[in-house]
Amino acid sequence: MNRIYVHGYDRMENVRLQDQAQTLVDLLHSDTAFPDGSSVLEAGCGIGAQTIPLARNSPGARITSVDISAGSVAQARANADAAGVTSVQFQQADIFALPFEPESFDHVFVCFVLEHLSHPVEALVQLRGLLRPGGTITVIEGDHGSAYFHPDSDAARMAIGCQVELQRAAGGNALVGRQLYPLLRQAGFDAVRVSPRMVYVDSSRPDLVDGFTKKTFTAMIEGVREPAITAGMVKPELFDAGIRALYRTAEIDGVFCYTFFKAVGEKSRQSQRGC
Amino acid sequence: MNRIYVHGYDRMENVRLQDQAQTLVDLLHSDTAFPDGSSVLEAGCGIGAQTIPLARNSPGARITSVDISAGSVAQARANADAAGVTSVQFQQADIFALPFEPESFDHVFVCFVLEHLSHPVEALVQLRGLLRPGGTITVIEGDHGSAYFHPDSDAARMAIGCQVELQRAAGGNALVGRQLYPLLRQAGFDAVRVSPRMVYVDSSRPDLVDGFTKKTFTAMIEGVREPAITAGMVKPELFDAGIRALYRTAEIDGVFCYTFFKAVGEKSRQSQRGC
Repeated sequence: MNRIYVHGYDRMENVRLQDQAQTLVDLLHSDTAFPDGSSVLEAGCGIGAQTIPLARNSPGARITSVDISAGSVAQARANADAAGVTSVQFQQADIFALPFEPESFDHVFVCFVLEHLSHPVEALVQLRGLLRPGGTITVIEGDHGSAYFHPDSDAARMAIGCQVELQRAAGGNALVGRQLYPLLRQAGFDAVRVSPRMVYVDSSRPDLVDGFTKKTFTAMIEGVREPAITAGMVKPELFDAGIRALYRTAEIDGVFCYTFFKAVGEKSRQSQRGC
Repeated sequence: MNRIYVHGYDRMENVRLQDQAQTLVDLLHSDTAFPDGSSVLEAGCGIGAQTIPLARNSPGARITSVDISAGSVAQARANADAAGVTSVQFQQADIFALPFEPESFDHVFVCFVLEHLSHPVEALVQLRGLLRPGGTITVIEGDHGSAYFHPDSDAARMAIGCQVELQRAAGGNALVGRQLYPLLRQAGFDAVRVSPRMVYVDSSRPDLVDGFTKKTFTAMIEGVREPAITAGMVKPELFDAGIRALYRTAEIDGVFCYTFFKAVGEKSRQSQRGC
């Protein structure tokens, strides 16, 4: 779900997309606020799409946001500047070799990152090492297997399956959302609490029909057309029928459902003393 | 989801199942309370599993609960008596031929009923006729296509698919939850608002692991083994592998997700005047 922030093409469109984006920001971020003075590491900030709401909800926290891509970090810095967010320090770094002292952060925040990693538990173990005892990690991920809709369509499910398979072939996991609990537990976190954040869309919510069903989810699936066909996963006609079926769910009698998962875990003081 | 209330086999078991049942009752019922003196029709009460929380949340309402099965109505009456619920009038009646005057109810409540009907819109139109202008309908349904889990399993999805197909063959629809918005709109209701109620289960919630994942959902799917095999839908080995895979999701690193949908719609005063 890297395309939550998509670009509108006129002013009215922008208003609608901002409504939709704000709805999703509220859904995912509203219950995350770190105390003044606390040190927060955002691991895998990309171009800063989640950094901005993170910083706005925790204006007194000292946030360090890193990404493996120097280009993304530069873009994230520019996007934060443009949004008037000045409290974040950006730097390029690899999540598997982070240049920070052990136990140097109070909180870690990871959003739409584990889906891209072939060894998510190892990444979480690394991040746990950077947390002080008693510190917390917050993880947010989507899950493409949580997508279902009306009218139902085998072709649409096939097209979504192509995205899942391509992400798997690239070493990632598009179904990672449902796995946050076992992943955090395996990485040694305690008191793990997972809460699903379901996006339910029917035609009484035209902002979400347009901004989420069509321009976020279906556009993302549409984006794998060429690689899926090139890889021989699907015939063009079937893939295109799947995309049409997804757009069909955006009509007046259509319904679309998708669920994000948010997990919070603690680095226990006790187990730390036991180490 | 007719088996939300399953029977425990010892006292400790009963406590756990009651915890789980109460969790689901809260999830589905807590925001439904009808005013003192209002007249409420529960259409399709079965053996009264939903009647009891309905009556407890609206102690001053005058509730009439009907079901097409005289045996179920008798059992519902007995169950309500046993639960100390005395404010409900039970009677046998067919939802398509209800023995009430038009516009004689303030509210209608329908829970786990549409899934069994081959013509749900027609049923909703009948119920709308019994509502006074300005009255509301509340509908709750499950959706078996909303079930997903970790570890994922093709065999488990195949076993669930057998239940869906058998219910379809019987004229019902196990995927009706996601369709509540279009169904209520097609039946002429206005101001329809649907809210999903997701049951998320991991091993930090042993009451739900036991009471929902194992004893409600998986037991229900297990219950269609013989008809599914008899109908030639699936080989016994594959079905049994699917059931094992569902139980596997109840282990320490497993996760299970299911979503109920609740819809509230109004019989508009305006469109009534327009008729």
